Amino acid sequence: MKNNINIAIVGLGQVGIYLYNELNIKKKDIEKKTGKKIKIVAISAKNKDKKRKFSISKKIFYKNPLQIFKKEKIDILFECIGLSDGISKILVETALNNKINVITPNKALIAKHGDNLSKLAEKNKVNLEFEASVAGGIPILRTIKEGLATNKIYKVYGILNGTTNYILSEMEITNETFNKVLLKAQKLGYAEPGNPKLDLNGFDAFAKIRILSALSFNTRISKNKCIMEGIENIELEDIKIANQLGLRIKLLGISEIIKNKLFETVHPCLVNKNTYIGNVNGVMNAVIMEGKPIGECLLQGEGAGPGPTSSSLLSDLLSILKGNIKYPFGMSYYKRKSVKAFNNNNYKNSLYLRFEVKDRQGVLSLITNRLAKYKISVKRIIQTPDKKNKKARIVIITHKTTEINSKNCLSIFKKNKNILKFPTLIRLYN
Amino acid sequence: MKNNINIAIVGLGQVGIYLYNELNIKKKDIEKKTGKKIKIVAISAKNKDKKRKFSISKKIFYKNPLQIFKKEKIDILFECIGLSDGISKILVETALNNKINVITPNKALIAKHGDNLSKLAEKNKVNLEFEASVAGGIPILRTIKEGLATNKIYKVYGILNGTTNYILSEMEITNETFNKVLLKAQKLGYAEPGNPKLDLNGFDAFAKIRILSALSFNTRISKNKCIMEGIENIELEDIKIANQLGLRIKLLGISEIIKNKLFETVHPCLVNKNTYIGNVNGVMNAVIMEGKPIGECLLQGEGAGPGPTSSSLLSDLLSILKGNIKYPFGMSYYKRKSVKAFNNNNYKNSLYLRFEVKDRQGVLSLITNRLAKYKISVKRIIQTPDKKNKKARIVIITHKTTEINSKNCLSIFKKNKNILKFPTLIRLYN
Repeated sequence: MKNNINIAIVGLGQVGIYLYNELNIKKKDIEKKTGKKIKIVAISAKNKDKKRKFSISKKIFYKNPLQIFKKEKIDILFECIGLSDGISKILVETALNNKINVITPNKALIAKHGDNLSKLAEKNKVNLEFEASVAGGIPILRTIKEGLATNKIYKVYGILNGTTNYILSEMEITNETFNKVLLKAQKLGYAEPGNPKLDLNGFDAFAKIRILSALSFNTRISKNKCIMEGIENIELEDIKIANQLGLRIKLLGISEIIKNKLFETVHPCLVNKNTYIGNVNGVMNAVIMEGKPIGECLLQGEGAGPGPTSSSLLSDLLSILKGNIKYPFGMSYYKRKSVKAFNNNNYKNSLYLRFEVKDRQGVLSLITNRLAKYKISVKRIIQTPDKKNKKARIVIITHKTTEINSKNCLSIFKKNKNILKFPTLIRLYN
Repeated sequence: MKNNINIAIVGLGQVGIYLYNELNIKKKDIEKKTGKKIKIVAISAKNKDKKRKFSISKKIFYKNPLQIFKKEKIDILFECIGLSDGISKILVETALNNKINVITPNKALIAKHGDNLSKLAEKNKVNLEFEASVAGGIPILRTIKEGLATNKIYKVYGILNGTTNYILSEMEITNETFNKVLLKAQKLGYAEPGNPKLDLNGFDAFAKIRILSALSFNTRISKNKCIMEGIENIELEDIKIANQLGLRIKLLGISEIIKNKLFETVHPCLVNKNTYIGNVNGVMNAVIMEGKPIGECLLQGEGAGPGPTSSSLLSDLLSILKGNIKYPFGMSYYKRKSVKAFNNNNYKNSLYLRFEVKDRQGVLSLITNRLAKYKISVKRIIQTPDKKNKKARIVIITHKTTEINSKNCLSIFKKNKNILKFPTLIRLYN
């Protein structure tokens, strides 16, 4: 690689503008560490005149990012737009085809098109790096690809979305409802002001799990149908009950090889309050890997925000400036295999079930009989009457049962007039 | 780098023999990931015929490791002997001078001679890698050098010695004395059967702190005089009292830049039981880094044993097989600066003091007057009489005071006839 490196940044949102500023500040430090002089020669964003945290040089501004490749000799492109398709995809493909290295924090793009893009990068002998796409500032991808290379990893899981973890923690601390806390998260910049849906419904964590699986198990990115649930149905009441039971609700992403098949999921879990994972609170992310010979290895850090994200983007930059061409997924596209999906129906968990029922004789036995019929045995049951409203709340913790079994068992409660609300189900983690 | 890579392993103790076996098993996997064919062409150890966990090929055995360089063309040497000087040092120097890459888990060697050896490696344009020297399987050095490159780290600390952490945890759980638990640790292979001193007196953790400082702050390895204390003076009684106070004793290594000066230390700390660090138990290690823009980043994993160590040695191997020549300390020897030492006398902590005294009038006031004279204010005091033996135990938790002040204050108690034992002092962690 030559000594003067031309850089383009496309997308000047929170992350892009922070990165722009960091690159300007840390030029000297980067030269000291790599011997390369970097220069930002082109930037692009939707709006040239938007008010930004740091001022930009308008001389190098492009309205159409694709024009950059025609006008400038770029060595490294930062794609900070964040779409899974559209201009993000076109831009990255164009760059790779022009033998330009690409760095991106775009998990949606990588989770969807990572395989093809890595093939393209390998073909053109350039780097495609995406450390910032998973767990913000935690250098988790590099750790899997390099620090734990040659380990046989069989499980990777954790708290992968800072927004939802913040909301769950904050609901517990303040006793405020989901909607109130969501508003607060949006004000603080933790949740998207316009559309927080991708964080809340588990999709964001899920894209990260797809990427983690591919890296951990050296497989193609899976397209398996999976259990993906967010936190939209978690009510303050569930958090309070969990608290009384010594439990805490966490949105976990889990990826595991079970009997040579791949199992991936994202859903809220009840975890013990005195476990490690039960104490990762606020916007923190945590990833736990289990493998041989390493045993258990755990990384924790801030999972969101322009600072940590920028830290990861710069680690990618240094890796490119220092080193050879690396396989985007640690191993050639052609050597990574697809892996069959574990049958989700056979996923087993203890369950937390919260029923709201009419306070009538026989309702409890209706529920317990139904559970018994499906051989779901009860570990704990707490019935709390609400005399005034002639209602009652029944919370049941079951022993382990399969997904399909619990689904079939509970289906009947959809249309029973004594069951006021289809039961809230939260899985217990192990 | 050529495609066929010749490897030599010197030292076939627990780590060396495990590595030997792993390399044989993982040849194919390594070729898949790097395109390089590795071959172990030479091994050496003190005793050819010692009983080992895996059998060795005697055809490639060398009694004198230095002979290897004369007989074989070696590309990568694993130094697994573990001395800070002597044959370890000569071997590594000879290899580097012969343009052979070196990988070692030898923290004593690196902490003492790392600067000179890195200069030698840079001069000869080969790699010197030592990921396994700190925190066993946790890829902490790579994380600092690569994953967090361009961050400004200002503090790194943690539990860096698995043996002592196991002993402290086990004493708390079993209520057994230090000596009993040490024996158990030796039986389990956690502590050296012959000489566990370097683990117990803090030296092992301290060597790791020296290496972490140099990498985190981009400085030369410091030779500053430091506070280094082990766990030899921790008694079961202290662990029990800590427990009652909601605290737990941990041997922490701490390195920090305070007002542009370097502060490094290893000593037992009282930490809150409900903090993260208070719950890293058994042989686990944990390293916490604080920096900008990353915030706090935390890594945890098994800190000892041939499996985790071998995981790190192999990550070094893959890094060499995949990449360019890298600076051993992430930056050229010539660009790393020395940094002045923080004055240890000014190190401030709350203190736990346990006095054993004669049960006589005036002894308590003797102690409290002395503390008052040195302006050490008392936060908590617990006096427990032992009428039968005409003794009493006085435990005092103080507010923050400096090292020099507490030293001067306590000195008087060495020769007081009413003080049966010079007070046990344990610092509280912030």
